[in-house]
Amino acid sequence: MSDKNLTMDKIVNLCKGRGFVFPGSDIYGGFANTWDFGPVGVELKNNIKRAWWKRFVQESPNTYGVDAAILMNPTVWKASGHVDSFSDPKMDCKSCKQRFRADNMIEDHSKGTVVPDTMTMEEMEAYVAEHKLKCPKCGNHDWTPIRQFKLMFETSRGTVEGEKDTVYLRPETCQGEYVNFLNVQRTARAKVPFAIAQVGKSFRNEITPGNFLFRTIEFEQMELQMFCKEDTSMDIYNDYKAQALKFVNDLGLSEDHLRFHDHDKLAHYAKAACDIQYLFPIGWQELNGIHHRGTWDLSRHQEFSGKNMQYLDPITNEKYTPNVIEYSIGADRLTLATLCEAYNEETLENGETRVVLKFHPFIAPYKVAILPLQKNLSEKANEVYRMLAKHYMCDYDEAGSIGKRYRRQDEIGTPYCVTIDFDTLEDGSVTVRDRDTMEQVRIKIEDLKAYLDERICF
Amino acid sequence: MSDKNLTMDKIVNLCKGRGFVFPGSDIYGGFANTWDFGPVGVELKNNIKRAWWKRFVQESPNTYGVDAAILMNPTVWKASGHVDSFSDPKMDCKSCKQRFRADNMIEDHSKGTVVPDTMTMEEMEAYVAEHKLKCPKCGNHDWTPIRQFKLMFETSRGTVEGEKDTVYLRPETCQGEYVNFLNVQRTARAKVPFAIAQVGKSFRNEITPGNFLFRTIEFEQMELQMFCKEDTSMDIYNDYKAQALKFVNDLGLSEDHLRFHDHDKLAHYAKAACDIQYLFPIGWQELNGIHHRGTWDLSRHQEFSGKNMQYLDPITNEKYTPNVIEYSIGADRLTLATLCEAYNEETLENGETRVVLKFHPFIAPYKVAILPLQKNLSEKANEVYRMLAKHYMCDYDEAGSIGKRYRRQDEIGTPYCVTIDFDTLEDGSVTVRDRDTMEQVRIKIEDLKAYLDERICF
Repeated sequence: MSDKNLTMDKIVNLCKGRGFVFPGSDIYGGFANTWDFGPVGVELKNNIKRAWWKRFVQESPNTYGVDAAILMNPTVWKASGHVDSFSDPKMDCKSCKQRFRADNMIEDHSKGTVVPDTMTMEEMEAYVAEHKLKCPKCGNHDWTPIRQFKLMFETSRGTVEGEKDTVYLRPETCQGEYVNFLNVQRTARAKVPFAIAQVGKSFRNEITPGNFLFRTIEFEQMELQMFCKEDTSMDIYNDYKAQALKFVNDLGLSEDHLRFHDHDKLAHYAKAACDIQYLFPIGWQELNGIHHRGTWDLSRHQEFSGKNMQYLDPITNEKYTPNVIEYSIGADRLTLATLCEAYNEETLENGETRVVLKFHPFIAPYKVAILPLQKNLSEKANEVYRMLAKHYMCDYDEAGSIGKRYRRQDEIGTPYCVTIDFDTLEDGSVTVRDRDTMEQVRIKIEDLKAYLDERICF
Repeated sequence: MSDKNLTMDKIVNLCKGRGFVFPGSDIYGGFANTWDFGPVGVELKNNIKRAWWKRFVQESPNTYGVDAAILMNPTVWKASGHVDSFSDPKMDCKSCKQRFRADNMIEDHSKGTVVPDTMTMEEMEAYVAEHKLKCPKCGNHDWTPIRQFKLMFETSRGTVEGEKDTVYLRPETCQGEYVNFLNVQRTARAKVPFAIAQVGKSFRNEITPGNFLFRTIEFEQMELQMFCKEDTSMDIYNDYKAQALKFVNDLGLSEDHLRFHDHDKLAHYAKAACDIQYLFPIGWQELNGIHHRGTWDLSRHQEFSGKNMQYLDPITNEKYTPNVIEYSIGADRLTLATLCEAYNEETLENGETRVVLKFHPFIAPYKVAILPLQKNLSEKANEVYRMLAKHYMCDYDEAGSIGKRYRRQDEIGTPYCVTIDFDTLEDGSVTVRDRDTMEQVRIKIEDLKAYLDERICF
């Protein structure tokens, strides 16, 4: 992000205009902070998910992937504590019938001097009355009492007559790893410390301020749970802090826009917790979290399932409940961060402005665009396209001036443009133009793949 | 599938034992036909999704991917017809309170001689009474009347006080493509014919007979919607039939286990419809579908959204509503088919039985396993592991005899095993053992990647 004045609106407009992200159910006026990834957005997000999986599963010998169902046995959410206590304090404006989060309104109004998390419902109601908080929508001060609203989406299975069987959309993916701790340990013959990783969707029935992909009711998490012995757990926690930072840094987020944020207030079972924050256009915000969760999760599942969740050390014969270090990052949020970081406006020599997304080549939607300089070069250009499309996502464009076509590729972050000209037919070479330097080199067609491979790896 | 007597139980047991698939929420006794993919299962399924995306998006110049939200504006499901008519006729056993699908029970009882789809509720009730159909669970004949039960999971958003805002879990992914038809056409500057593709989860509140991954309440679809002009639509339909067959055949499903099944009964708007069936251990069953849906989908969305969904041909200036050809395949179902197809039991010369999964190397969970012949070769073996793990999912195993380790890799379908021996330290070469032929060749370490690359591509 070279542009200090970058706004979220600018990113949203580019995303809608270039096919990264569209409002969900757009033709019906959108829907409740849902977003659909378009042709280039789906590639960007998939590449980010691949980069994470490559780093934390493929190249991590003691980490095992799973893909658990979104709909889980409801007892899972009793064990996790979500059924009892996963809710937000909300109040409704009696005038315009809109619903708001009381804690957020109090925090905003007090400019952070008041911490609503520590207040009772009565204290919050007193604050709202005393400061005459107004409805952000209609401006009136006419509120219902504050009530707790559940954040889990509920549905029902409905197989047995008369029986109420509430089912939840998972509000977090990690329970899929905890319930599979024994299965993975057994089948992978895994030795502690080992981790279970997962990428998948979660759902939260939140009233959100939106902020584009930053907070949505449906979002994708990339996360892992490392099961370890207590005496090594703080080292592992610190190691994941370092690894998590290195990952987003390697992916292109600059150190200036990243910082650790240690939590002051911990859950009663937690031993340490930390976020990595990124400097979004809306300010410093959480990008990912690293949490030392102690033995809480496995102990609770042992209690509720009746299954022994302990680990038997094959060397010392010691039996114990492993500690859990959780490392979790939002795929949508990271996609947004890479868009913000990559966004650059440059003034060219001719005075024109060039908008260019300087993605790490590994996550760029298209690795290369094939551009025949003239229409009667299409055949050769298509031959090169088909050759490269076996290996990467490639774009092909023969419409408009070459300058215009370069700009289009810049705006979707394509790291390399290959132009086919009349010399190509003679010497079997093409011109490769670099997105960032705009420098051009002449390369033999048969060397193209090796040239690109070397530059797009992660 | 060389074994004609292969049963689903055999596949399920292998999957649970080797880490392909576990029952969902296993420690809580499972949950309602949900399944979790384990360490090797998640790789298998992801590779299948990658193969599909590579073939039908990456290598198809006129196909654009999207990833739409699972929760959509409820009007989408009114336009699609699901709110009004997506339901199953069900009846409850008054004795044991269990719920069953009346149509399936009638079809089974009549051994296919009766077609319940054409019967009214009264006719179905008359059949149940006349033939005294018994409850499959408790054996009694004591039924409630037959009622229609909705197949969409319902939940609610709950942002506005008092307003009932029912939201559905999508029962199919294709609506995500239809609602983005205009956005994709505009941003990709796409010309008809073009397709929009998506891979994602869908949910159906079905009473299912289970059959492992074959039918689940939560499943992943890989599908595309091709928008085309009417006069080319039948050619495109037939072309997708051929492409769909070629895809699963190239992925390893043998022609003997695949067949087309044209539909006799079509939806009122459809012009043609066809399944590709695979010979599962439970018999010939649908693996994927190709449907000619006419202008139904875009017309309905035009009607309900008020947005003009027509296409303006830039050359002829003709304006028309495109026809839609849908090609859809279940990722879970295809994963099951590849497991069944790959399963082989072979009798070795020493009389032992070798269980081996002969996956296409591209979809095999691990491409290669690194096996040091002795523990003091670990360092060299780890060096080779780290080199290859940058490129593929690799396993590493130093526990047990080499024969035992080969068997373990055979059972999870690893196409190549690399053994490190004392000569490796001298000559920098390793032995590569082929899963299917069990033949061994000696390869220089620096040539390993090229050797493997050539053999695992799709």
